[in-house]
Order: sequence, then C-alpha cells, then structure tokens
Amino acid sequence: MPGDEPMPQARRFFRTTRLEAFSDGVIAIAITLLVLDLALPSAGTPLERVLDAWPFYLAYVVSFLTIGAAWLAHTAITELLVRTDGVLLRLNLLLLLVLSFLPFPTRLVAEALDDVSGQRVFVTMYGLTLLCIRLLLTALQAYARRAKLTGDEHVVRADDMGHTLVPVVIGYGVAILVGLALPTVAVALYCVIALYLVVPLRTVVRTLFPRA
Amino acid sequence: MPGDEPMPQARRFFRTTRLEAFSDGVIAIAITLLVLDLALPSAGTPLERVLDAWPFYLAYVVSFLTIGAAWLAHTAITELLVRTDGVLLRLNLLLLLVLSFLPFPTRLVAEALDDVSGQRVFVTMYGLTLLCIRLLLTALQAYARRAKLTGDEHVVRADDMGHTLVPVVIGYGVAILVGLALPTVAVALYCVIALYLVVPLRTVVRTLFPRA
Amino acid sequence: MPGDEPMPQARRFFRTTRLEAFSDGVIAIAITLLVLDLALPSAGTPLERVLDAWPFYLAYVVSFLTIGAAWLAHTAITELLVRTDGVLLRLNLLLLLVLSFLPFPTRLVAEALDDVSGQRVFVTMYGLTLLCIRLLLTALQAYARRAKLTGDEHVVRADDMGHTLVPVVIGYGVAILVGLALPTVAVALYCVIALYLVVPLRTVVRTLFPRA
Amino acid sequence: MPGDEPMPQARRFFRTTRLEAFSDGVIAIAITLLVLDLALPSAGTPLERVLDAWPFYLAYVVSFLTIGAAWLAHTAITELLVRTDGVLLRLNLLLLLVLSFLPFPTRLVAEALDDVSGQRVFVTMYGLTLLCIRLLLTALQAYARRAKLTGDEHVVRADDMGHTLVPVVIGYGVAILVGLALPTVAVALYCVIALYLVVPLRTVVRTLFPRA
Repeated sequence: MPGDEPMPQARRFFRTTRLEAFSDGVIAIAITLLVLDLALPSAGTPLERVLDAWPFYLAYVVSFLTIGAAWLAHTAITELLVRTDGVLLRLNLLLLLVLSFLPFPTRLVAEALDDVSGQRVFVTMYGLTLLCIRLLLTALQAYARRAKLTGDEHVVRADDMGHTLVPVVIGYGVAILVGLALPTVAVALYCVIALYLVVPLRTVVRTLFPRA
Repeated sequence: MPGDEPMPQARRFFRTTRLEAFSDGVIAIAITLLVLDLALPSAGTPLERVLDAWPFYLAYVVSFLTIGAAWLAHTAITELLVRTDGVLLRLNLLLLLVLSFLPFPTRLVAEALDDVSGQRVFVTMYGLTLLCIRLLLTALQAYARRAKLTGDEHVVRADDMGHTLVPVVIGYGVAILVGLALPTVAVALYCVIALYLVVPLRTVVRTLFPRA
Repeated sequence: MPGDEPMPQARRFFRTTRLEAFSDGVIAIAITLLVLDLALPSAGTPLERVLDAWPFYLAYVVSFLTIGAAWLAHTAITELLVRTDGVLLRLNLLLLLVLSFLPFPTRLVAEALDDVSGQRVFVTMYGLTLLCIRLLLTALQAYARRAKLTGDEHVVRADDMGHTLVPVVIGYGVAILVGLALPTVAVALYCVIALYLVVPLRTVVRTLFPRA
Repeated sequence: MPGDEPMPQARRFFRTTRLEAFSDGVIAIAITLLVLDLALPSAGTPLERVLDAWPFYLAYVVSFLTIGAAWLAHTAITELLVRTDGVLLRLNLLLLLVLSFLPFPTRLVAEALDDVSGQRVFVTMYGLTLLCIRLLLTALQAYARRAKLTGDEHVVRADDMGHTLVPVVIGYGVAILVGLALPTVAVALYCVIALYLVVPLRTVVRTLFPRA
C-alpha cells in the first residue's frame, strides 16, 4: 500500500490493481478479437474450404501464442510489483497500444498468404509488430526494477526477460530478413519463436529427466 | 500468498488473481462475441425472417451454454486453487485458445444449417471443438490436483469433473458420429449435453423431492 | 468467506469474486459492442447523413441505458452478497445470455426505424428482450434473498427491485402493446423507462428540495 | 468499508471494486475495438496501400491516446476513492457512454481524411466527443471531492484535473474552430492534446534536469 511508507514529495505511487485489471482486459480482448478475422475461402467443397483456410489458422495460432506469451511475461512482471508509478502506467499503455494493434497485421498476413503480391510487405509489418511487443515488455521489466517498484529482487531473476532478450531479438531479426524473400517461412519462424516463449522448456526437461 | 511458505528452489508460484481475471475476460468476450454473428436471412416478410433465423438462435444458445458451462467448471476449479504455477497458466492458455475459437465454428454451423452442402463438415468441426474444451477442462483440474495447487482436497470431490467425464465424452462421441449422417440431430444433441452440464440436476431433484 | 462457517453437506458455496468479474466483463462487452452497429446512411450530404442516423443514436442510447441500469441493479445485488451458490451462478448466466443478446434486436430496431415494413416485429422483439432482462434481475435478487446469500437484510430494502417491478412491468407491457401500432412511440417509451431506471429520482428531489 | 462508519439514513454507499472493474472493462474494450476499423485502401501496390492508410493510423493513435489518457485520469480519481455512491456510479456511466461511443466518430474521421467532402462535419463531431470526455472526467473528480468520497484530500491535489482543465478546454475549442476550415490540422491538434495529456511532462523535465 502506497500510504504505508514515506513518499517522495513530487512522485506519486498507485496500487497495482487497476494496472493489472486494465491490462488483463485489453490483452484478453485483443486475443479474443483474433477470431473475428477467421474466414473461409468461398470456392471449393466445404471440406476444401475448411482446409484451404490454413493460413488463417496459422496466423491465428501465432498471434494467439504471441499475445499469450506477452500475458505470461506481463504476469511475471506485475507479480513482483508492490506499487506502480505514472511512468510505468504510461509505458504499459504503449505496450497495450502495440498489443491491441496486432490483430490488424494478423488479418493482413492471413489474407496475403494465399495471394503472393502483398506477402513481403504484410509479413514484415507483422514481424516488426511482434518485435516491438517483446522490446516493450523488456523495457517494462527493466523500468520496474530500476525504479524500485518490485519487491523480492532475487525471485524475479528466474523470469528475467533479459535472459531471453538476445536470442528472441536475433530470432525476430532473422525471421524478418528471411520474410523479405520467403514470407511463408518467416511466419513458420514466428510460430517457433512464440512456442519457445510459451512452452516452459525447463519444466518439461525437468519432468522428463527428474534428476538430470 | 506464495511468499508465506517455503518454496522449492526452481519452481515459481503465482497468485491466482490474474489467472482468474484474464480467464474471466477471455471467456466473457468469447461468449459475448457470439452475438455479432447473429443475422437474419434477407428474404421473406420481417416475421418470417426472424423465425427463419432459428439455426442462428440454436447455435447461439448451444455455444453460449457450452462456454457458460466451461466458465462454471473453471470457477469450480479456481475456487479451490490456493496458488498457481507456470504449467497451469499455460494449460489454461491452451483452454482459452480453444474457447475463444468456438465463435468461428458456431458461425459456420449456423450458416450451414439452412444450406445442406457443408453441414457434415462444419458440424463435425464444431463437435470436435466442444469435445476439446471439455477434455482441456478435465486436464486442468487433474493437473491442479496432481501438482498440489488446491487447498481442501475433500471439498473439490463434489465437483470432480472426472465423474461427468465418461458420460460427456461418450455423449460427444455419439453426437459427432450421428452428425456425419444427420447434422441437425447432432446440434440438438450438443444442446442436450450443454443443458446437462449447466442445469444443476441434483439441486433440482433435491428441491422437488426434499426428503427423497 | 465460505470456509469460516459450517456448511450443509451437499451444498457448495463460492466466493463472489468471479461472479462479479465475469458479469462485469460480459456486461461491459455487451454495452461496448453496441457501437459496432452504428452506421450512417449512404445517401445525402455528410451533415444530412450524420443527422439522418438518429434512429441508430436513439437505439444506442436506449440499449446503453438499459444495460447500464441492469449493471446498477446487479451491483446493488452483489454488493450485499456474502457468498454465492451454484443456482445463483446459473441464474446469473441466464441473465447474461439475455443481456448479451440485446445488441442484436438493437441493430434490427435501428435498421427498421427508417424502413417501415419490419418495425412492428423488431420493436416487439426488442421490448420482450428488455422485459426479460428486468424479470431475470428481479428473480436474481429474490433468489439471493430466499437462499440467504445476502448479509444485511435491512440495508437491501432501499434498493429492493420489487418496489419498481410493478410499474416497470406495466410500463414495458404498455410499450409493447403501443409498439404493435406505433413502433417509434414504443422506442420513445423504452427510452423513458430506461431513464426512470437510471436517474436517481430521490437523490435529485432531495438535492433540489433539501428540507422537503 | 461502508459498514465501518455511521451512514446517513437515506444515502447508500458502495465498495469501489465493481465501479473500477466495470470501468476497466468498458475502457479496455473501447480502446481495443478501435483496431476493428483499421482498413487498407483497395487500390495500389501492397506497400502503397499500407502507407496510404495513414489517416487510419493517425485516428487510431489519437483515439487510443485519448482513451488511454482518460483511463489514467480515471485511475487517479478512483485511487483516492474510499467509497462510492449512486450518483457517482451514474456520472461514471455517462462518461462510459461517451467513451464507448468514440470508436464511431474515429471511424468516420479515418474514412473522411482521404475524401474531402465529409471532413468538416466528422472532424467537428470527433472534437466534440473528445471535449465531452474531458468535461465528464472533470465533473467526476469534482463530484467525488464535493461528496466527500475521497480519502487523502491533500494527495489528490497533485493530479487535480482542474489545473489542466482550462488549457485543455481552450485547446479543444481552438482545434474545433480550426477544424471547420482545416480538418486535417485539427486532427493533428487533437494528437498534440492527447500527447500532452498522456506524457508526464513534469517527470520528463525532472529526469532531464534533476536539480533544476
């Protein structure tokens, strides 16, 4: 509680309740709106139409996993926040701006995957949006720590996004460059990165090899 | 509170607040987006158009009840969670992926019910989605219990989804098979299953026959 | 907290947290989705188009106020709940089903108000939906009280929906009958009822005539 | 807690939980629905189409920032609320009505910016909506204080919206007048005002000139 401790004169702290509730709301809506852009091609038998819509399913899953991974990372950050300040609220708003923008390039990519002409442009736009989301999440965590808004400094270390930042940025960079020549391959790479971010590899390894 | 008890070194626990808030958000949006796909056929008098839209109402009600039943089951699970871990958060994300996908096959089924050609394909896709939701809910409950994330073990027994799992899986299996020949009958069966999941039969019986 | 008191063997209670969060989510989405159906007629100068869209604004405001009034009543009910049970959760789900359906007849009414043919049918459907919402809210309050889920019995009396039930049902009944002959007048009546439900008349009177 | 202190007979207080949750929900949805109206012009190469859509991006960013600023202001208000009453709930509902209406004029402005005919009308409508939001926020804060619903009177002073009210109203007034002749310039001005409301100037200055 902000009121329990002496506060610097000019700086104001907030509870984290509404930061969490508003972020949960925006992220939940962005992730659920993706379904509105799913559509079947109009030509073919019903079964062909369902199967030919694979670019939509792929884009849906990649965007869902990316937003899901962002939510997991956001949860890991706010879990350790004991208070928030005006700067963090605004940085968070910027993150939500990009997150809630994602359904738009997702739709463009899905429509372009069966029509070659726009692939390179839309897939690049998509990749840049995904990269932005990750950079803003890392900035959010870095600011929270620098501004001493977190509680147990040592616990957060396990989820430090700095650890995954370099491989993830390299991954997105490679995928964006690949996408200029082979857009479909780039989308597959985005899917791999999203899975890497969501699947708890360490837990899986620990479960498979308990004493290793 | 996770901080009140000794924690294993490598495993991290979370409060359940954001798991609940985010799930409530996604489920609430998925259930409310269903209304966007309601539409009237363009031919006929106004009254005929309202009445001829019955496949849309039916699909709306079945999907609403199924998502509603999933929310009730989800509530019964999180009610007993005293903490959560990374695996449960990800399992929950997978459940939300399928739940928020449901409006898409719902729309396809509604459009297909007055046009015979695609019925079998779309109704099967719909049934598989409904089955997936139930299996993932059961997995969520089973994991929560196995990973010792719940509090009062004995209380949860009353809502154990294992009890309803076998009849529900058989029900969905039968409906999916029936749907290959008689799609409209399958949708009626999905409606019956959803009602069975939502209506608290034991309470109804207890109210009607107090001492029985 | 349910755990603090002895519980009957076969009945299970829940915290009210998720009931509130899920209801807030669904009601917030239903009330916000109304904006998606706002549209301008395509003919005329820009100013004429903005002004000719008045049936859309009217339907938007009436539905917004009705859902807003439902949220106020819902808040007044849950404010006094100290726990909830499975029946209340399901009754609440039924209320949310009708609330989240409301954007559909709203859209039909807005489209029909400048096209006479469908007015009677759509406005009647709209009125019946509004009436259903009020009846389900009253049922929710009545059940909460009968099942002893509320705390301070005497405080709730001030917000007892039973007091407004008779005038509101009469109001909706009259408006539905009027709508069979004069649909536009019926919509105006629905607007009056919504205002009556939202505007805190007693507070206004008390402010204007402090000692009266 | 309302119950901890003597209450006037006829007035009823509420917890702020649901006020916050419902407002977060509606604001989160309104801000996320903006993405549904993003669209590319159909003519041109893919890159041209992405670039020619700039009016949509501009309107998206301005509306996002305006709603975001409203959320920040709303948070600053509720942060200090210790209870709420029926009047505040209704005033808040009115604010949410205008906030959730904003995606509609946003869409009109975006569509009109590449088609001169409707610019003046739509941009004026947009500016009036933005002004309304700010006035209602100020009214909300003023009422909360006058009705003694806030706790620490002295803390709130730092975020007093009265301080920014005069420059903001003048800003909107000038932009609305400018928009009658130069609609695109007005949209740029709305963007400047939104940035002024969101960017924490004092914090930025303090960071750049620590001892100044």
